[in-house]
Amino acid sequence: MIGPEIDRLIQLLAKLPGLGPRSARRVALHLIKRREGLMGPLAEALAAAASSIRTCSVCGNLDSHDPCFICTGAGRDPSLLCVVEDVGDLWALERTGAFRGRYHVLGGTLSALDGVGPDDLSIPGLLERASQPQVGEVILALNATVGGQTTAHYLSDRLAPCGVRISRLAHGVPVGGELDYLDDGTLTAALRSRRTL
Amino acid sequence: MIGPEIDRLIQLLAKLPGLGPRSARRVALHLIKRREGLMGPLAEALAAAASSIRTCSVCGNLDSHDPCFICTGAGRDPSLLCVVEDVGDLWALERTGAFRGRYHVLGGTLSALDGVGPDDLSIPGLLERASQPQVGEVILALNATVGGQTTAHYLSDRLAPCGVRISRLAHGVPVGGELDYLDDGTLTAALRSRRTL
Repeated sequence: MIGPEIDRLIQLLAKLPGLGPRSARRVALHLIKRREGLMGPLAEALAAAASSIRTCSVCGNLDSHDPCFICTGAGRDPSLLCVVEDVGDLWALERTGAFRGRYHVLGGTLSALDGVGPDDLSIPGLLERASQPQVGEVILALNATVGGQTTAHYLSDRLAPCGVRISRLAHGVPVGGELDYLDDGTLTAALRSRRTL
Repeated sequence: MIGPEIDRLIQLLAKLPGLGPRSARRVALHLIKRREGLMGPLAEALAAAASSIRTCSVCGNLDSHDPCFICTGAGRDPSLLCVVEDVGDLWALERTGAFRGRYHVLGGTLSALDGVGPDDLSIPGLLERASQPQVGEVILALNATVGGQTTAHYLSDRLAPCGVRISRLAHGVPVGGELDYLDDGTLTAALRSRRTL
């Protein structure tokens, strides 16, 4: 049998996405063999993050400050408001360096099956922000999934009275993508949204 | 950009086996969303393991005590000594519940390419333990790999003067295995080691 401390560690690691019991054991052993170099620093980083990270009350981003550094940052364009489903999508867009506006994290998508209605998402806050005079455009950057597009459709209806331009991300061939490897839906969307040169 | 605490956490998580930058971000987000339920407990479990776990000076196992609970446990058979490459192998054998002897963790295998010689493994300790009067059999439970089998061959030579029975794990068809899915080496080994009914 394994000692209780190691067993507890493995049980918790097995709850992480992408990790099952076998990989949890592998990770635990890897960490134990690197107690000072990795295990200790990881414990500290987790404790530091757990105590310092807050959810931004304005946009839903995660940061050590509330409001977050994107909402308070001087180098951001307040006329652009980009709506995303989750903080992970916000991180993905920030990694591009191609967006300098501000964000709004919905916290998911509408789902009748899962009982997620408009009040379960951060929609009132979105409508309030979209109505502010400095906001000129709301970009609906939701996932190109059924849930994402249904929610985007609903949001564009709710945002109509706000008097802002409403846009959504282009759907089409991924950069570097070969047509032969794409599914019918993506190819069809790419054809329908074709752009005149 | 992501805040420094989150970034630090992601950097460290990406160093875990089986985790790259993308899965590290996924894990970080999963943890942050479960600060009290998972992130905090995980930080504590890591800190507890880091401070309490020791390497058994007798056998090389990991436990909060030195010597470990297997070396000191009353319900173990001191006449059987099972040699393994790594603590992960010890855990695997313990999970079977089929072995009640004691273990010896070598810490790897001999490798001329990687510069791992006999003095880099826990071999002197093994020879000393195998020479003790209560030890009647040494099981070489090394991996069925080139490195494992080479090391096993070397060990059986070194152990010869100790006057103990030296055995190794059977090689053959895995339980539940279908012959059509096995490689030539495994099938050949299974044929050669066939047992008369």
